[in-house]
Amino acid sequence: MTKADPAGNLHEAGRASQVTAEIIVVGNELLNGTTLDTNSHWMSQELTTLGVIVNKKTTIRDELEVISAAFVECLNRKPEWIFSIGGLGPTYDDMTIQGLSIALGQKLYLDRRAVEMLKKSYEVRRKMFNTPLRRMPKSSLKMAMIPEGSTPLPNSVGSAAGVLAKSGTTTIVCFPGVPSEMKAIFSEQAAPILKEGASRFIHAEEWLEAIGISESRLSIPVSRIAKKYSPLLYIKSHPMGFENGKSIIHIQLILSARADERESSIGILEKASSEMFEAARKLGAKVRKMKSVR
Amino acid sequence: MTKADPAGNLHEAGRASQVTAEIIVVGNELLNGTTLDTNSHWMSQELTTLGVIVNKKTTIRDELEVISAAFVECLNRKPEWIFSIGGLGPTYDDMTIQGLSIALGQKLYLDRRAVEMLKKSYEVRRKMFNTPLRRMPKSSLKMAMIPEGSTPLPNSVGSAAGVLAKSGTTTIVCFPGVPSEMKAIFSEQAAPILKEGASRFIHAEEWLEAIGISESRLSIPVSRIAKKYSPLLYIKSHPMGFENGKSIIHIQLILSARADERESSIGILEKASSEMFEAARKLGAKVRKMKSVR
Repeated sequence: MTKADPAGNLHEAGRASQVTAEIIVVGNELLNGTTLDTNSHWMSQELTTLGVIVNKKTTIRDELEVISAAFVECLNRKPEWIFSIGGLGPTYDDMTIQGLSIALGQKLYLDRRAVEMLKKSYEVRRKMFNTPLRRMPKSSLKMAMIPEGSTPLPNSVGSAAGVLAKSGTTTIVCFPGVPSEMKAIFSEQAAPILKEGASRFIHAEEWLEAIGISESRLSIPVSRIAKKYSPLLYIKSHPMGFENGKSIIHIQLILSARADERESSIGILEKASSEMFEAARKLGAKVRKMKSVR
Repeated sequence: MTKADPAGNLHEAGRASQVTAEIIVVGNELLNGTTLDTNSHWMSQELTTLGVIVNKKTTIRDELEVISAAFVECLNRKPEWIFSIGGLGPTYDDMTIQGLSIALGQKLYLDRRAVEMLKKSYEVRRKMFNTPLRRMPKSSLKMAMIPEGSTPLPNSVGSAAGVLAKSGTTTIVCFPGVPSEMKAIFSEQAAPILKEGASRFIHAEEWLEAIGISESRLSIPVSRIAKKYSPLLYIKSHPMGFENGKSIIHIQLILSARADERESSIGILEKASSEMFEAARKLGAKVRKMKSVR
């Protein structure tokens, strides 16, 4: 790609240096169909809004060697962030932190800050529900064992603290699997740090609807326009089925660019969207603009 | 584990030789939060019911090298089945089959059977919707390019055929990402083959509800009983939040065993469930039996 190519130039400055992340989801219940994984979907939406690219998601069973191997493989790919979800609770099959400690080669120790967080959370719930005073069970202390060099992250709505660790250029954050707790720790602890790095980037979308054209026919202009503006823009067609015998396709144009080139990048997104609109219309489709996401 | 341990013996004969699978999900839309992945959840439920253990799920972007690497890594772990979902359509970013052909070292070729399937699907939809006759677009033929040695699987509700391939002891089946098409190909083409192998195994569950006890306290008997019956049984506690200040925990006991030892295995599951019931009750919880899954 030459310097004269505006999309290419923007890419080199923009998307190529965009913040990257991987997600590791831990739990047999997600692999045997007991639980639908809405956690990582929510997190993906939040990360995308923050301008972070999620490159991969790995869902694994509650097995110690499997968990540590997943962290090691993920670290070898050197994303800027690794987020794990699940396996932080007090039960025997909650092994994420132990797996992380093996992957990092850092021993587990009882962290005083984490113990204080646990005690505080116990106290809050005791008061909130006005239950008779009872000592925190010793088995809770498992949740305060974290790898040396890592930091516990307060959980404002439950017991299991998050864990933040560093390895080379990668920051790892482990979240509990209870959705409200994962969301609270993400929004209160991780998002503020992510915002600093990610504010250099913007994410924007244009959506079109084309009626009366097959995805196969539409694939020709989609491919041509996507290539023309790649990798600043990414274009995806979503077949939505049929209505009165006519195929309905939603076309999503996604921009990832540097924030300081916001205006020119948005201009390119809108230009590509117009070109896509015209191309689909010429092929005989009824086209309409659905929405803009900024 | 000694021969005298009935759970261990059953395991060696049962779960250890249970049919294993991995799922590869392909699509940027699943990593950027556009689409919630209900496909792999549905498939996990079906596989579990069929007695197949899903060991891992990998969700990746629409990038050729990433897709082929995911297949290679997955093949190296030698599961009996690999199921991929997504990336079989006609557009430029549908690259699953190309990625598979690289992973298998088998060239893509235009498969006559797949072309016939495409034509038939085109004809069916043309008649169904009574649209003016129009030739199948050439770009559709991309969907009939499959790796040498593989087999196209009919798609009764859409265009993109499934693809079945073999590598060593692993059978690979690629499904389109449109939910109705993935489900049709799974139920009509894959499930009958899976049933043959999986009928040797059974899956059963017992669910208890414990009210008024923290997950931490409960973790002690959960851990003890799980160890006692491991790996024939697997026990998972699901914290469900609070009601009137009382913690609610659902306890799931999962059995995976050989079908020809069905009676004795179910007996062990029920015994473990009773022990769990008693242990939670002794710790002060209000316990009830929720449901049995057979």
